[in-house]
Amino acid sequence: MAVFLDAHDVAAIVNETGLESFWLRLHDYLRHDFLRWEEFDKSPRSACHFPSGVIELMPASDHAAYAFKFVNGHPGNTRRGLQTVVAFGALADVETGYPLLLADMTLATAFRTGAASALAARSLARPDSRTMAIIGLGAQSEFQACAFRVIMGVDNLRIFDIDPRAAEKFARNMARFDVSIIRCSSAEEATVDADIVTTITADKKRATVLSGNMIGAGAHINALGGDCPGKTEISRDLLLRSNIFVEYAPQTRLEGEIQQLAPDHPVTEIWETISGAKPGRRSEREITLFDGVGFAVEDFSVLRLLMDLSRETGVGQTIELVAELADPKNLFGLLQLRNNERRYA
Amino acid sequence: MAVFLDAHDVAAIVNETGLESFWLRLHDYLRHDFLRWEEFDKSPRSACHFPSGVIELMPASDHAAYAFKFVNGHPGNTRRGLQTVVAFGALADVETGYPLLLADMTLATAFRTGAASALAARSLARPDSRTMAIIGLGAQSEFQACAFRVIMGVDNLRIFDIDPRAAEKFARNMARFDVSIIRCSSAEEATVDADIVTTITADKKRATVLSGNMIGAGAHINALGGDCPGKTEISRDLLLRSNIFVEYAPQTRLEGEIQQLAPDHPVTEIWETISGAKPGRRSEREITLFDGVGFAVEDFSVLRLLMDLSRETGVGQTIELVAELADPKNLFGLLQLRNNERRYA
Repeated sequence: MAVFLDAHDVAAIVNETGLESFWLRLHDYLRHDFLRWEEFDKSPRSACHFPSGVIELMPASDHAAYAFKFVNGHPGNTRRGLQTVVAFGALADVETGYPLLLADMTLATAFRTGAASALAARSLARPDSRTMAIIGLGAQSEFQACAFRVIMGVDNLRIFDIDPRAAEKFARNMARFDVSIIRCSSAEEATVDADIVTTITADKKRATVLSGNMIGAGAHINALGGDCPGKTEISRDLLLRSNIFVEYAPQTRLEGEIQQLAPDHPVTEIWETISGAKPGRRSEREITLFDGVGFAVEDFSVLRLLMDLSRETGVGQTIELVAELADPKNLFGLLQLRNNERRYA
Repeated sequence: MAVFLDAHDVAAIVNETGLESFWLRLHDYLRHDFLRWEEFDKSPRSACHFPSGVIELMPASDHAAYAFKFVNGHPGNTRRGLQTVVAFGALADVETGYPLLLADMTLATAFRTGAASALAARSLARPDSRTMAIIGLGAQSEFQACAFRVIMGVDNLRIFDIDPRAAEKFARNMARFDVSIIRCSSAEEATVDADIVTTITADKKRATVLSGNMIGAGAHINALGGDCPGKTEISRDLLLRSNIFVEYAPQTRLEGEIQQLAPDHPVTEIWETISGAKPGRRSEREITLFDGVGFAVEDFSVLRLLMDLSRETGVGQTIELVAELADPKNLFGLLQLRNNERRYA
C-alpha cells in the first residue's frame, strides 16, 4: 500500500510540524541531497509541448529511492480560474520498484523552490543581508519571503508587481510573519538598497525585469523567472557582470537566464559551493546570481521529507496504488475474486 | 478533481462491462489509436536501471490527452511474494495540463498487451486459425488466451510451462471460458499443429524457447518475451525465416527479439498493416512474427477506455490529485485555510 497526500494533507503536515520547523527540515533535507549530488541519477526531464502549454515528467533517484514529478505549465489557465502550474509526484522503493508515496506537489514544489533559493543564498548573499526586493508577487512569492525569513533572517521586504491586487494578497498572507513590507511602485524602486533581489514574474517571453543600472555592488540576485526556453527576466549585461550559480548546468543552459549567454560561459553548480569544493561569494562587492530553474533532485528531497513527516504525524491516507496480489503469479485471479466490490464516483 | 481507479475498480469496470465486451472495446480503442499513429508524440521511455531492476516512465500524447505510465521490472520480487511488474498511470487534459484519471495499470497493462497481440494477429495469422500454443504460463498468459478467444476465435490451446503449478493455475482460471486446453510436456509438443504460437517466458536472458524446427509453414508467432535489452526467446534462424512486424521500430530494435538482427533488418510497423498501407500476411505458407514489446500508445488507449468506462459505469473514486484553489494565484492561502483538516493513515 502507498500513502497518498493531497494538498490539504501537505498543508496539515506543515501545520502539524510548525511552519518554521518545516522550513528548517526542508532546508536540511535539500542540503543533505545537494551534498551527495553525484550519487543521483540525473535523467533529463521528458517534456511534451502543446499549443496550450507543456507537460513534463521529472525523475531523480539514488540507490534507495526513485522519485518523479508530473508538472505542467499552461499560461492561459488563469483565464479559466485554474492554476498555471499544478504537479503531483511519487516516491518508489528502488529495491522492489513498488511506489511508497503519491503526493500533490503543487504546494511541495513551491516549498522546495523557496528552500532551494534560501539554501543557495546562504553561500551567495552577504551574511548580513536583511533586505530583499521581490519583483513579481504570484503564487511563489510568499514562499520565497518565508524561506528567506526563516533560513536567512531576511526581515525587510520591498515588493512590486504590476498588479496591485497581487501586492495586497502578498501583504495579507505575510501579515502574521515578523517582517516589514514596503510596497513599491516600480521594480526599480523595489531594488533600492536591497541586499537580495528575487525576480519571479510570470511573463512567458524574453523580458527585462532587472537591468544593470538597478543593481549595486554586493547584491545577490535570486533569479527564478527564467525557467523555460524563451523565458528570461535579467538583462544580458547584468548577467555578464555577475558571478553565476546554477543547479544543473546542462538543464539551466536550456531553460535559465543563461540561455542568453554563450554555451561555455562559466557557471558554478551550487552543490559544489554548498559542499565547499568551490567558493560561493568571493568579495563584499561582487554581484552573485542564482539562476534557479528547479531540478528533480529538489523534488526528490521534498518527497522524502513528506514521506518521513507523514509517518511522524500520521497524516495521510493509504491507497492501493498498484494491485496487491495474494499470489503474485495470478494476476488474472483478481478479475474473479472481487466481483462484488464496486465503488461509485 | 481526478478519478482514481485501483486494481479492484478496474476489475469491477471489466465485470460491469462484461469481459467479452471489454475486450472488444479495448480492441476498438487500440485499433482507433493505431490508425492515427502519426498523430502521437512518441517520446522514448525514460528508464532508470538499478542492480535490483528497472523503473520506467512511458509518456504518449495526442492533441487532446497526455498519458504516462510508471512501470517497474524487478525479477527478484517473486522471492519476496511481490509481483515482478507493477504499474500505475495517469491521463491528463492537454488543454489545461490538469490530470483527469489516475489508475493502477498492473491489470490494465495485461489487458492492453493481450488486445494488442490479438489486434496484430488479425492482420498476420491465417484467418482460419483456431489453435494456439502458449509457452510460458505466467501472469500474462490468461490475458493472451482470452484476447485471442474473443478477438480471433481461437478455441484450442496447447500450453506449456516448466512449472506444472503454472499450468494448473492457467487451467483453473480458463475453466469458465469456452476453450479446450491440452497440457503439453515440452515447448516442442505445444507447437505441434499450432496456427499461432505465443511465447511469453520470464527468463531474463538470451534464451531459445522457440527454434526453427518447431515452426511449420503458415504459422504466426506472437513473441512477447523479448521485451528488454538482453532478453530474447526466439532463435535467430527462425527470425530470419519470418516476416517481422513491430510496434515502434526504434524501441523494438533495442528491446525486442530483433535486437539479435542487423539494425537495418527490414521490419514493418503494425500500424501500417492495420491501416492497409502495407500488407500483413502475404501467403498461406509464410511465417509471420509479431515482436511485441509494449508501447506507450497502448497505455494511452487503455487509459482512455478506462476513463470512458468509469463515466459509464460510475465505478471509481474522485481524489484531489492536485490542489484545487479558490484563487489560483493564492497558493500560500492553502496553508491557512484548512488548518483544521487532518487525515490519519
